[in-house]
Amino acid sequence: MERDLKAPYLLFLGDGQAGEMAKTAEGIAYWRPELVIGECAMPGAEISVGAPKFSPAEAAQKGARSLVIGVAPNGGQISPNWLPLLKEALDCGLDIISGLHARLSDIAALEDRAAQAGRTLHDVRHPIAPIPVGTGAKRPGKRLLTVGSDCAVGKMFTSFALEKEMRARGLKAAVCTTGQTGIMISGKGIAIDAVVSDFVSGAVEQLAPATAADMWQIIEGQGSLFHPSFAGVTLGLVHGAQPDCMVLCHSATRAHMFGLPDYRVPSLTACIAAYEAAAQLTNSAARVVAISLNTKGLSADEAKARTRVYQQETSLPCVDPIRDGAGELVDAAI
Amino acid sequence: MERDLKAPYLLFLGDGQAGEMAKTAEGIAYWRPELVIGECAMPGAEISVGAPKFSPAEAAQKGARSLVIGVAPNGGQISPNWLPLLKEALDCGLDIISGLHARLSDIAALEDRAAQAGRTLHDVRHPIAPIPVGTGAKRPGKRLLTVGSDCAVGKMFTSFALEKEMRARGLKAAVCTTGQTGIMISGKGIAIDAVVSDFVSGAVEQLAPATAADMWQIIEGQGSLFHPSFAGVTLGLVHGAQPDCMVLCHSATRAHMFGLPDYRVPSLTACIAAYEAAAQLTNSAARVVAISLNTKGLSADEAKARTRVYQQETSLPCVDPIRDGAGELVDAAI
Repeated sequence: MERDLKAPYLLFLGDGQAGEMAKTAEGIAYWRPELVIGECAMPGAEISVGAPKFSPAEAAQKGARSLVIGVAPNGGQISPNWLPLLKEALDCGLDIISGLHARLSDIAALEDRAAQAGRTLHDVRHPIAPIPVGTGAKRPGKRLLTVGSDCAVGKMFTSFALEKEMRARGLKAAVCTTGQTGIMISGKGIAIDAVVSDFVSGAVEQLAPATAADMWQIIEGQGSLFHPSFAGVTLGLVHGAQPDCMVLCHSATRAHMFGLPDYRVPSLTACIAAYEAAAQLTNSAARVVAISLNTKGLSADEAKARTRVYQQETSLPCVDPIRDGAGELVDAAI
Repeated sequence: MERDLKAPYLLFLGDGQAGEMAKTAEGIAYWRPELVIGECAMPGAEISVGAPKFSPAEAAQKGARSLVIGVAPNGGQISPNWLPLLKEALDCGLDIISGLHARLSDIAALEDRAAQAGRTLHDVRHPIAPIPVGTGAKRPGKRLLTVGSDCAVGKMFTSFALEKEMRARGLKAAVCTTGQTGIMISGKGIAIDAVVSDFVSGAVEQLAPATAADMWQIIEGQGSLFHPSFAGVTLGLVHGAQPDCMVLCHSATRAHMFGLPDYRVPSLTACIAAYEAAAQLTNSAARVVAISLNTKGLSADEAKARTRVYQQETSLPCVDPIRDGAGELVDAAI
């Protein structure tokens, strides 16, 4: 699952209209700022991750080695109006890295240009090695899985925050990434939602294999058992992960399930019961040990009040790792 | 999802060693005997589905139009020693139909020979049309989903038995097939376990779309929520199906979960609770209404005794559709 991704990166923000999802660019800029030379976007872009703005030629001159598609447009397609800029990047000597379902390598004009320029198109969403069927066999090592009440509530952020805190304490820990942004941050991993469904739990077994007894594999969760579009992905991930413990990620402000106004966000007690029941199929000791609360948009007082409410409701530690750090989450896990 | 499969068929049983799985050949021979010209296998084969034995040339002369790979070898690969026979079939004017994960069209020697012979290689395991992400939106029509305590317990058989019984009563009913054998029987469908995990519930929404209020879509289930290798496939299927009712399929003689000696088969009460909880996310009225018991290998008395035990345990009708017909299952559903 190692990917030969060449840093540093020029982060491409696409059309960059306000409200678009730039999760990938934001994640890389936050967790690996040392990998980021700058950002670029189509004319008229309104969003930014706060990096210096460079054209592909300028970024290449500053040492960039790859352009990263840092946005996830609706439908996951590569917009035709991006092609001139992407070709320019190839001509300037940059590889292109994409995490979209649509493949760069399916666009003949890009494939040809990359071949001419001697550059590589990296479609990190797509598996690069054969994946076996899961076995459910127990394996050594410690595993922590981040799970969620919904999609896009902070599972990747929480995973990297746990890794950072564990390492600061001298523990052996590494995030096993399961989504495109995590793969670009860590340089390896498998995008679970792009794996053929029969092989999802097998992919997680391969991603977080038998390891030293004192090693923490922090497995980045995906989706939610309560999301009607993606719960199957989540369940396969939970079964393959065989987690010893789970950190439940939740958004304090989410009004309904991601993208689905008719679906309510489940209660945290319902989430805990469902995730523990699911995980105990492959690890009877699996428990949810803490709540990671995403309080984006709330005042400090509101955020503090909400963490107390959830703490009382669940009898578990509850913190926002951005405001409070991940110390209490690690305390609960180890 | 319509597949242009040309019947009648010559069923190919591969190496045909005793104990091999010939589910596909058996399913076609049982449900659509009128589509079967004969069977063939490698020299030394020990298994048979009871059809006349013909070489590809003989079968072509009798009117066969396709050779169907009727076995699922371990690992789902096409054995190299089958290639001479498969090429012979192409040369005799037969298409080849396969439901394996491995693609016929990835074998250059077959692809070339098919092109020369003007024949088609059908890889029915693989989707032929783009599949959207599931929405969870309610849609008109009646939906019955077959679910299972385990893999390979009779979900496909039960689905076709329900269709036959409903049609005999003058009801509008059609099986929506989700596995390779069902696709070969019905000529259409989507093999859910070969769909990229993000799109499983969307595939089922596409497979069993909005329909007339009095139409029964009988959706063929796959896997089990309790199988550590495949439960994610099952959950996506349950959510996409939005079943009004479910028939729970169970083997009376299964010692452990399919292929996994360390995993016990769950109790039927645990199954009912898990399937109802899962299905109610997208259809709050979803209920398990009956048990379809696979009593293969038991005497008539033993089979009768076991159906009574499960009937008492679950307070639901319980029959073996092979021995007892599907009448009670339909009574429970409509």
